[in-house]
Amino acid sequence: MWFASDNAGPAHPRVMEALARANAGYAAGYGADEAMGRVTARLRGIFEAPEAAVFLVGTGTAANALALACLCPPWASVFCHPFAHVQEDECGAVGFFTGGAPLTLVAGEHGRMEPEALEAAAGRLGGSVHQPQRGAVTLTNATEAGAVYSPDQVRALARVAKAHEMPVHMDGARFANALAALGCTPAELTWRAGVDALSFGGTKNGLLGVEAVILFDPAKAWEFELRRKRAGHLFSKHRFLSAQMEAYLEDGLWLDMARTANAWAARLAAGLGRAPGVRLEHPVEANEVFAAWPRAGHRRVQAAGARYYLWSFEAPQAQTLEGGPEAEVSARLVCNWATTEAEVDGFAALLAEEAAVQSA
Amino acid sequence: MWFASDNAGPAHPRVMEALARANAGYAAGYGADEAMGRVTARLRGIFEAPEAAVFLVGTGTAANALALACLCPPWASVFCHPFAHVQEDECGAVGFFTGGAPLTLVAGEHGRMEPEALEAAAGRLGGSVHQPQRGAVTLTNATEAGAVYSPDQVRALARVAKAHEMPVHMDGARFANALAALGCTPAELTWRAGVDALSFGGTKNGLLGVEAVILFDPAKAWEFELRRKRAGHLFSKHRFLSAQMEAYLEDGLWLDMARTANAWAARLAAGLGRAPGVRLEHPVEANEVFAAWPRAGHRRVQAAGARYYLWSFEAPQAQTLEGGPEAEVSARLVCNWATTEAEVDGFAALLAEEAAVQSA
Amino acid sequence: MWFASDNAGPAHPRVMEALARANAGYAAGYGADEAMGRVTARLRGIFEAPEAAVFLVGTGTAANALALACLCPPWASVFCHPFAHVQEDECGAVGFFTGGAPLTLVAGEHGRMEPEALEAAAGRLGGSVHQPQRGAVTLTNATEAGAVYSPDQVRALARVAKAHEMPVHMDGARFANALAALGCTPAELTWRAGVDALSFGGTKNGLLGVEAVILFDPAKAWEFELRRKRAGHLFSKHRFLSAQMEAYLEDGLWLDMARTANAWAARLAAGLGRAPGVRLEHPVEANEVFAAWPRAGHRRVQAAGARYYLWSFEAPQAQTLEGGPEAEVSARLVCNWATTEAEVDGFAALLAEEAAVQSA
Amino acid sequence: MWFASDNAGPAHPRVMEALARANAGYAAGYGADEAMGRVTARLRGIFEAPEAAVFLVGTGTAANALALACLCPPWASVFCHPFAHVQEDECGAVGFFTGGAPLTLVAGEHGRMEPEALEAAAGRLGGSVHQPQRGAVTLTNATEAGAVYSPDQVRALARVAKAHEMPVHMDGARFANALAALGCTPAELTWRAGVDALSFGGTKNGLLGVEAVILFDPAKAWEFELRRKRAGHLFSKHRFLSAQMEAYLEDGLWLDMARTANAWAARLAAGLGRAPGVRLEHPVEANEVFAAWPRAGHRRVQAAGARYYLWSFEAPQAQTLEGGPEAEVSARLVCNWATTEAEVDGFAALLAEEAAVQSA
Repeated sequence: MWFASDNAGPAHPRVMEALARANAGYAAGYGADEAMGRVTARLRGIFEAPEAAVFLVGTGTAANALALACLCPPWASVFCHPFAHVQEDECGAVGFFTGGAPLTLVAGEHGRMEPEALEAAAGRLGGSVHQPQRGAVTLTNATEAGAVYSPDQVRALARVAKAHEMPVHMDGARFANALAALGCTPAELTWRAGVDALSFGGTKNGLLGVEAVILFDPAKAWEFELRRKRAGHLFSKHRFLSAQMEAYLEDGLWLDMARTANAWAARLAAGLGRAPGVRLEHPVEANEVFAAWPRAGHRRVQAAGARYYLWSFEAPQAQTLEGGPEAEVSARLVCNWATTEAEVDGFAALLAEEAAVQSA
Repeated sequence: MWFASDNAGPAHPRVMEALARANAGYAAGYGADEAMGRVTARLRGIFEAPEAAVFLVGTGTAANALALACLCPPWASVFCHPFAHVQEDECGAVGFFTGGAPLTLVAGEHGRMEPEALEAAAGRLGGSVHQPQRGAVTLTNATEAGAVYSPDQVRALARVAKAHEMPVHMDGARFANALAALGCTPAELTWRAGVDALSFGGTKNGLLGVEAVILFDPAKAWEFELRRKRAGHLFSKHRFLSAQMEAYLEDGLWLDMARTANAWAARLAAGLGRAPGVRLEHPVEANEVFAAWPRAGHRRVQAAGARYYLWSFEAPQAQTLEGGPEAEVSARLVCNWATTEAEVDGFAALLAEEAAVQSA
Repeated sequence: MWFASDNAGPAHPRVMEALARANAGYAAGYGADEAMGRVTARLRGIFEAPEAAVFLVGTGTAANALALACLCPPWASVFCHPFAHVQEDECGAVGFFTGGAPLTLVAGEHGRMEPEALEAAAGRLGGSVHQPQRGAVTLTNATEAGAVYSPDQVRALARVAKAHEMPVHMDGARFANALAALGCTPAELTWRAGVDALSFGGTKNGLLGVEAVILFDPAKAWEFELRRKRAGHLFSKHRFLSAQMEAYLEDGLWLDMARTANAWAARLAAGLGRAPGVRLEHPVEANEVFAAWPRAGHRRVQAAGARYYLWSFEAPQAQTLEGGPEAEVSARLVCNWATTEAEVDGFAALLAEEAAVQSA
Repeated sequence: MWFASDNAGPAHPRVMEALARANAGYAAGYGADEAMGRVTARLRGIFEAPEAAVFLVGTGTAANALALACLCPPWASVFCHPFAHVQEDECGAVGFFTGGAPLTLVAGEHGRMEPEALEAAAGRLGGSVHQPQRGAVTLTNATEAGAVYSPDQVRALARVAKAHEMPVHMDGARFANALAALGCTPAELTWRAGVDALSFGGTKNGLLGVEAVILFDPAKAWEFELRRKRAGHLFSKHRFLSAQMEAYLEDGLWLDMARTANAWAARLAAGLGRAPGVRLEHPVEANEVFAAWPRAGHRRVQAAGARYYLWSFEAPQAQTLEGGPEAEVSARLVCNWATTEAEVDGFAALLAEEAAVQSA
């Protein structure tokens, strides 16, 4: 019962096979491998963006920070949600890569920025030399709270951004999960809705460690190349990144894995919904479940070997796995392509059983 | 009736005379001038800190950012109030000088951080590699809302900071005003209360453009020197900075000017208090008055040549000097050593007159 | 006949197998995987350094730049050879990671800095606030010209560095090749000779993309962790890096592969030595051969499919693969664990044949 | 006999008077003062550049570093002479302000880069992602060795720079001295010869501490404003900078002072030329004299109170004022507007006397 993170799970066997195949003989390094040419063509096709520039890096933090450094100068601010990975989980990478650009927080439910809140925050900055300028907007889809932005919701934010001459970046560490949930096309969820640059996640969705950055406008492609190189994110044996991404895109594996993960999360949420005393804290729209349950249930599933993080966006460090004085715990459960029915149903059953014990 | 800013006013004649005297003959450059030796000795005496390192720079932003860069590594965060100059008025200088350290905002009334809010904010960071670490705390005294921190209030914040192993910086652009308001000693308001580094303002209080940075613990003195140099803030003809600061400190000129400015602000606040329809928005504890009055009064004093900024911390850019739909305006009035009785009383009288006209 | 680079070759089958094994089930992320514990223990043992801090990253540029950022403050300089990878091949990464530290070039033959030249260069800096200070020394072993530093040569440089209070970093992208050439112990070539931090290469020597950074003094371990995270170099599925490194270290695979590569380079050099008109440009001490030969020979081996870079440290861009007016070309040939006898002997034979044709 | 530096001398009385006049009443801050409008108009007129953007800062390091940060991205290199102030005397400021751009050194006699050397250095960089790109060229006029670039010499360098798509910056800390020496127009020496940005010095030539930055192409004006602000180089009481610069430009004071300083240097050089055993080390074209003389002469003038730096570009720290084993010393003598005939002639006479004593 590993629900700690989608990056704790294994890579897909087809990815491993592709990696093994890629190891034959010699290949040009630093992104000049032939497989990368195919990856670029494939992603351009998938996104209906024949001019897009495509890059591979090894981590999501690198993807986000490099993309944002191309979009936001040092003297401007990146606007993001308080839950955003760039704010909460990257140790200030945006500040490092941009040369000091601050993050401005924009509120909204379930990890989704509200357009009105973005408008208000953007209105406070810019024009005066005394403040950071309006730099770029980054939104996370699926969000860190397991919700998704629809194309219309993306467009509404992009409209505000563009009215303030800000480009839009999407942190798509779980882009496949969002897309699988929405059923729209990749283009509809990105550049057609106003997204200029996308971190297209692979690591959380069945790869060993590869993310693509897609710049729909290739004007900054060479700048990205140079920033990637000097940040140590250009791999010499690049073919091993290309091979992962190529396998990911082949025959829709990326969407299949995301659909599977989403389905397990939905089933898990449904199961939890039947357990007395369990309360969902965010809508379950992708592959994450945020819920609260009694401490007794927490102890029961922990004893059974379940792995997950206690998690509260309000006070992230107030809870510990060992527990605390609160009568209930808030937790995050993440499913991935390798999650099993036994894990999902077993977990919900344990919580339900414990509830029965307690109410007896 | 210039109340726009304390940095719009003239330098004190004694400062100008000192500058003229300093121009005789030759002097060693880059801080090796003899006058700087006297300034250091004088400030050490005033602060009862015989080991303190003392530096002069030309602007408050340089003072704050250089001091904080010595206290906070790139991967940690500086904690400050949302109104703080480092957050609102320095175009991201802390991010630039530290190499990317973000600011974490800590709420509180009238520009004063609350210790509980600092504790909560600090508790959210640190320990995990995924987030910026706890770096340093900076508090502004007098605050940007015209209030002051007492030594006890400083100590309460410093206690929280030290419990999290964070050094404390005080932005004292209006330190003299705070001290004049409190009547305590410089040492009591700084290192005895837990302050490690002070930006000791001069520019807003009668100099042409000099701030001292005082490091009560001189361990980082050489680092400060190097950071100052490579940031272009080490003046070759340094004697002209020393001369200003020396005149400032001589015979208590600095405190005299601050007392005068504070007194005018108090008289102005009192006068406004007698004008119908005028409402103070923050306590007037130093040399700034934040108040709201009817738009008609605003037009009247503007027509009479008054100069001030419309100012709202809630929505800083919502108001313009030209006016807007609101029935009343919020404004900031700043007094300085050169403010006159005629300006202060005249201003209040005009508002009162207009109120009388309107109610007639 | 691929001699373009050791990073164009394949990973070793045992590494691929380890990767496949590592993919079973779930594992804690971000370096908390169990395999990483074993890697740390193994490297501590190999280096006889039970306190050393060990980290894995994906590229050599990341390893070098992160290590040097821990050793050299922004206001100081890193001393390196003009051929060094940090100077020639990392697009300014040291400047980026340190926050602006410049590189100071120190000459010497075959990519080895001369202690006297280091002493002279170090003597020019430091003490005065007007110049960058003395920061750190980085030496590359094996060098970029295919030579190696002996422990005594390392010690001589470290002695100069330490006399100027500078820590010493070794760029060991080809550390295994140097060690295989010298026959000393890892400790003798590093900390016992005065090295404080090592980039321990794996990528060029049979891995897919993993380098270890070893800090022999762990005082900066936490700083390194934070720098790695904010630079996007902490992998979530870290187990796949650990697995590569574990396989690399097991049963001496790393040294076996390096010995093999070195042996091919020696055989290649010997073969070239027998070809008329071919001239070695640097001593062949590791797995690289730098040599010059007539343009006719160049055309002959190119036509036969040989892959290598024309290379001249004096004027790196003056030559192109397509050729130029010069009667002879200078080239770099790199061997790796997968190089074959057929490639090595065939290449030398072709050059000899062409020489015979030309002289006929 | 103060020849230590032109920044050890006094400001001109007319500048002091202007400063005193500027202190009357109130003025808008942060560059919005009326005097700044006049300064901009005056400099545009002097340079025949009606569109140029003009900024004032307090130090030459700030002027250079801010200008270069606008011209050179973090991943490119600034090309300069090994003697350049940015290389030797600014503690890495260019690296700090640009976000890590390295300096590439370009040789040439007397502090003047050779176009061929620039071509060779530029040819080594650019195109490949592995190296810093070609960023900008900065030349110092008058040079750090007291020579000047003619308009033709500037044009020759600019031609190379432009062929590589690099903008050209001129460090004109002693621009007035160069212009006075050459007798051409300011436009001829700058934008007509291909200079894009100029640090127009005032501090070394009779001001207290003001330099102008002139961007002949105003496209980056707003970027400069923001960089200046976040670096703490935007003065609130900006009128005191404007007043200095206005007085400097009025009635040609700036050129008069430079002509005077140059004339004293020429007279000093002539006097030294008559002293046996004295040898000029660089041509004396502006206000600096580099010469070598016997140690006995050095002791004699030191005893008489002369102030100057022992100076050798080859080994800058090998000599000390206290002396050393060498039979002769190399020194730099700098004249300024306030230098006197007595100082100049007295100094040369002392050296001549000592030579007579020694040869007796």
